[in-house]
Amino acid sequence: MAQDPLVIFTPSGKRGRVPAGTPVLSAARQLGVDLDSVCGGRGICSKCQITPSYGDFPKHGVTVREDALTEWNAVEARYDRVRGLKKGRRLGCQATIQADVVIDVPPESQVHRQVVRKEATVRDIVMDAATRLYYVEVAEPDMHEPSGDFERLAAALEEQWNIKDIQADLTLLAKLQKALRKGDWKVTVAVFADHHGGPSRITEIWPGLHEGGLFGLAIDLGSTTIAAHLCDLDTGAVIASAGVMNPQIRFGEDLMSRVSYVMMNPGGEVEMTAAVREALNTLATEIAGEGKIDPALIVETVIVCNPVMHHLLLGLDPVELGQAPFALTSSSSLTLPSRELELHAINPRAQTYILPCIAGHVGADCAAVALSEEPEKSKDLVLIVDVGTNAELLLGNTERVLACSSPTGPAFEGAQISSGQRAAPGAIERIRIDPVTKEPRFRVIGCDLWSDEDGFDAATAQTGISGICGSGIIEAVAEMRMAGLLDASGLIGSAAQTGTERCFAEGRTHSYLIHDATAEGGPRITVTVGDIRAIQLAKAALYAGARLLMDEMGAETVDRVVLAGAFGAHISPKHAMVLGMIPDVPLDKVVTAGNAAGTGARIALCNRAARARIETQVREITKVETAIAPRFQEHFVAASAIPHASDPFPNLATAVTLPGVSFNMGGDGEGGGRRRRRRA
Amino acid sequence: MAQDPLVIFTPSGKRGRVPAGTPVLSAARQLGVDLDSVCGGRGICSKCQITPSYGDFPKHGVTVREDALTEWNAVEARYDRVRGLKKGRRLGCQATIQADVVIDVPPESQVHRQVVRKEATVRDIVMDAATRLYYVEVAEPDMHEPSGDFERLAAALEEQWNIKDIQADLTLLAKLQKALRKGDWKVTVAVFADHHGGPSRITEIWPGLHEGGLFGLAIDLGSTTIAAHLCDLDTGAVIASAGVMNPQIRFGEDLMSRVSYVMMNPGGEVEMTAAVREALNTLATEIAGEGKIDPALIVETVIVCNPVMHHLLLGLDPVELGQAPFALTSSSSLTLPSRELELHAINPRAQTYILPCIAGHVGADCAAVALSEEPEKSKDLVLIVDVGTNAELLLGNTERVLACSSPTGPAFEGAQISSGQRAAPGAIERIRIDPVTKEPRFRVIGCDLWSDEDGFDAATAQTGISGICGSGIIEAVAEMRMAGLLDASGLIGSAAQTGTERCFAEGRTHSYLIHDATAEGGPRITVTVGDIRAIQLAKAALYAGARLLMDEMGAETVDRVVLAGAFGAHISPKHAMVLGMIPDVPLDKVVTAGNAAGTGARIALCNRAARARIETQVREITKVETAIAPRFQEHFVAASAIPHASDPFPNLATAVTLPGVSFNMGGDGEGGGRRRRRRA
Repeated sequence: MAQDPLVIFTPSGKRGRVPAGTPVLSAARQLGVDLDSVCGGRGICSKCQITPSYGDFPKHGVTVREDALTEWNAVEARYDRVRGLKKGRRLGCQATIQADVVIDVPPESQVHRQVVRKEATVRDIVMDAATRLYYVEVAEPDMHEPSGDFERLAAALEEQWNIKDIQADLTLLAKLQKALRKGDWKVTVAVFADHHGGPSRITEIWPGLHEGGLFGLAIDLGSTTIAAHLCDLDTGAVIASAGVMNPQIRFGEDLMSRVSYVMMNPGGEVEMTAAVREALNTLATEIAGEGKIDPALIVETVIVCNPVMHHLLLGLDPVELGQAPFALTSSSSLTLPSRELELHAINPRAQTYILPCIAGHVGADCAAVALSEEPEKSKDLVLIVDVGTNAELLLGNTERVLACSSPTGPAFEGAQISSGQRAAPGAIERIRIDPVTKEPRFRVIGCDLWSDEDGFDAATAQTGISGICGSGIIEAVAEMRMAGLLDASGLIGSAAQTGTERCFAEGRTHSYLIHDATAEGGPRITVTVGDIRAIQLAKAALYAGARLLMDEMGAETVDRVVLAGAFGAHISPKHAMVLGMIPDVPLDKVVTAGNAAGTGARIALCNRAARARIETQVREITKVETAIAPRFQEHFVAASAIPHASDPFPNLATAVTLPGVSFNMGGDGEGGGRRRRRRA
Repeated sequence: MAQDPLVIFTPSGKRGRVPAGTPVLSAARQLGVDLDSVCGGRGICSKCQITPSYGDFPKHGVTVREDALTEWNAVEARYDRVRGLKKGRRLGCQATIQADVVIDVPPESQVHRQVVRKEATVRDIVMDAATRLYYVEVAEPDMHEPSGDFERLAAALEEQWNIKDIQADLTLLAKLQKALRKGDWKVTVAVFADHHGGPSRITEIWPGLHEGGLFGLAIDLGSTTIAAHLCDLDTGAVIASAGVMNPQIRFGEDLMSRVSYVMMNPGGEVEMTAAVREALNTLATEIAGEGKIDPALIVETVIVCNPVMHHLLLGLDPVELGQAPFALTSSSSLTLPSRELELHAINPRAQTYILPCIAGHVGADCAAVALSEEPEKSKDLVLIVDVGTNAELLLGNTERVLACSSPTGPAFEGAQISSGQRAAPGAIERIRIDPVTKEPRFRVIGCDLWSDEDGFDAATAQTGISGICGSGIIEAVAEMRMAGLLDASGLIGSAAQTGTERCFAEGRTHSYLIHDATAEGGPRITVTVGDIRAIQLAKAALYAGARLLMDEMGAETVDRVVLAGAFGAHISPKHAMVLGMIPDVPLDKVVTAGNAAGTGARIALCNRAARARIETQVREITKVETAIAPRFQEHFVAASAIPHASDPFPNLATAVTLPGVSFNMGGDGEGGGRRRRRRA
């Protein structure tokens, strides 16, 4: 008796013998090969396309004859006529196996296909969205065996897809009878299955086969901006991206001022909650428009945010987060109907997943950074810094991961800086100071030219040169330090000390003039000693936080640094290290990760298992509270010097030689320190 | 070595030895004795009160010494001082066992206490509400081990009450932090645990010990009226009862006219849904006011209703229920947040349970009747008739239960009757006709006197005598049949044939005058042949339904009949049987069950296991669809005669002798039949 045909699937390499006449889709299911199907093998969804290979395969030990699969049948022929089947492709549910065969499953036919996550890196997300489509044929009602339409749909899902105990909202039930009858008892349902194995839920229903896709929003809800990616839940592709300002800014620029607003105006959280929810709806509508999809096809959202935004989004009073012991109302992840967040712009039965918070100061955004950057998988010791109004820090390796936040304040975002402004057209974002002439050249947002290049004036005539943004002030301070205009203690030298008239006296200290736009009706853009102080406070807090984690880890140095956050993407590693924002590492070991929190949100949107993974990891992360750490103050004081009062920066020294200037004891009598000394 | 003390609990009889010094509450838990505690043994809730017995107990084989329990401690003394402890009572969590003792657990200290369900019967409900109170002490936040307040509450519930995986809505989380701090980290929570073992849910939280109780509403949502009982979820006591008219009446008097309204006005179900939900809110507010409780303490509702009301309550289009194959959108029970039904008058996190529907014409109300009347436990064959606009019938015994509905129309409710009216003050509800004089006497709603008693005129002067209600017309027709004024075919005799001027010609037929109030500006209340026809149609439908079930069961007779429904409570068994509404059984085997659907709702409210039980039973009930049964028409025609054209009524014959009159072939030429004959 002849053996059953041997079937070998690539790229998985799975192989086995199946009876002749077995459809390829059935063979794949029997052998555990990942081959997609929405219609369950009825030849209408075309998700199960495969490519048979013919000829000799010594590697597999088989020869595949031309007639290894059956000829095209009527279903395939019709599909090809109506939709077009790529050359060499077959429908896996129609072609049956007649003899030994090698079958390739192309990526788009895999449910758990890998999608490239970040252009810059090689890491991938494996698709495993919580919401999937299922096509089902439902039994018609029978007066002799009365049962509800929903119960027959549930039975069909169990029988045809092995989905048990399905649930549905009243609003879904309200659409059910019409959809079933319009689709002649054939419907497609979107089923949401959470990552904890809870009961599945039908979130949408369409008559017949739904081919319009399913979408999700990955939302990074920041204090200042709200950014979202619209993702295809089948392919993982980003269809559109958009951002809006967080309207809560009108209640307070930074988080603590919003908490104060609630303290001063009991119930104020209600207004703020309404404002941010409305902004999310606006964003969803915009992004759906940009992606040219019906917003009702958005059936999932994943939201990451800091703890205060977390509470204000959920309608929880954030006041406890503003005072020790910084108790969160709830730190766990949340899976809830989006309508509970009043996200009415998307599908009314959409589900929202909110990542867990790590601690009262370390939010779901930091958890998302951990999900994206995976410190727990790092063999060397990595410090991940998410720079924003509050900096969150993660330090770890395969052994252990620690987290803390550090109160940097808003200086890194250009706030509390004399010429500071938000990152907007006209803002200086890059700056270089010639160490010899002490002359600056710079670039502004909205123009690719440097200020000493031809055409710069014309190119910036529209926006003007209006101020200096967060990354610009960091570069400016670092460049001043490298050019010998600024000493380690943070004092700016006088014109006489520095040899440039750009250093000018202002009260009892000196400032440095970057650009005088007064002739064109613009501002004088300067860096004052006050600005230096603000940056020193911010960077010292950041560095002290990192050192506290290193203490806890028992590490004197770290192996590499990842700068995350939209702002981190614009910081030059060299300048950050000159400033002493981050511990000393080889410069090529400082990388920027872009919006890692947003990437983490995307991962959680596309992959259910990632939700379970980050929930476990957050429980395992060691939380360090800077507010009660005895050594924080000590680290902070030492870190106020530029780059540092005591820690050596040997790697920095190999790349940059910092002038050994000191303007405190200078001879011109204008230094603040000297003045106090005189009065004493 | 001396043995450990022996403790014997009554009334359970559970006994065992526990180490000396064991608190009574702990001993009860070890021995599986049902002893309540909300505070978990902290001496503050007083739910664990017990009564020790002293002296010789030969039955138990022990002698209880005076010092078998410890003396009162400070906690008991304070409790007695502040609240008062009944004589002989101890707090089970404070008194510890020192020597052999007999301890009685009074009913109010049992969680699963039995509460009398119906005054008229001896059946009980065992308390096992889905929502219970738990007092917990929650760990304070710790900056070194940051966790959310909710997570610490969840841990406390698991540790102190073994409640795992607790969940909560955002609106509960929003109250959490204030409650914990106000209660100094001690709170009482209401926990809802469904009957399927799904995750439990905190539905309310109070600082400290909550002593205000918890309540639920058992709602019977009828086509015409909505009735509710407000029940104490701890004791099962009915605190208040109330009813309102179903405001959907303005869209159609009966169910089919409401379905027609939706057919004619697409989207009309939205208006009707809004109207009934508003009525439920009004009812909840009223009943809470009557019960003098805060409506926010209503944390559960159970709703029973017919299929059309079921759909209109849930916001589902009822059109499919108006046409074969009468497909329900969903037939299963529903457990859902009450706010999804817009029940905003009660606790915002209240949970609603809706019993399963049996079939497209046989609703959750019929399921509730089954839960209340338990045909599946009946050793003899019982027919349960829930009489209303649609009659639902259950026939069964321990072997098998069948159900159907029968389209009786609204005649039994006084509609489509010439002098008919709703059951309201002034309506004739009881009537007797003297078989000799043919004179009627009657009672009207709102007055306990019969019309031939002294003071009747004065007592009814206010309301007048305005018409005849459903039970009144049934009695009137039956009395006319017994008095020889009406023949088996449904014809009323002439004055000459009957010997009373109260029978008067009206067109080609005769009518019977019950009361002429025209002198007082009131109506002439008569029974016309048209009225008789309406009653005949209704009762024939009811009887035909019962016969269809008997056919299916293979039974020629039933053993007993239960008349359910608010209307059933007012029907006299004898009159019902004279009319031939129900199969012939001994008169003492016809009992009325009052509002059995409402009782079923109360049972499901007080006892979780009853929900699981009725869900199983509904699946096991054999559904009989009268609309497609070939023999229904045959049964219907035969049942049009009064009492019946062919079925013998031997039991009725032993109680009542019906005059063998026939007015069809009468000699005076006024009978309709004769007239037709003449013209032929």
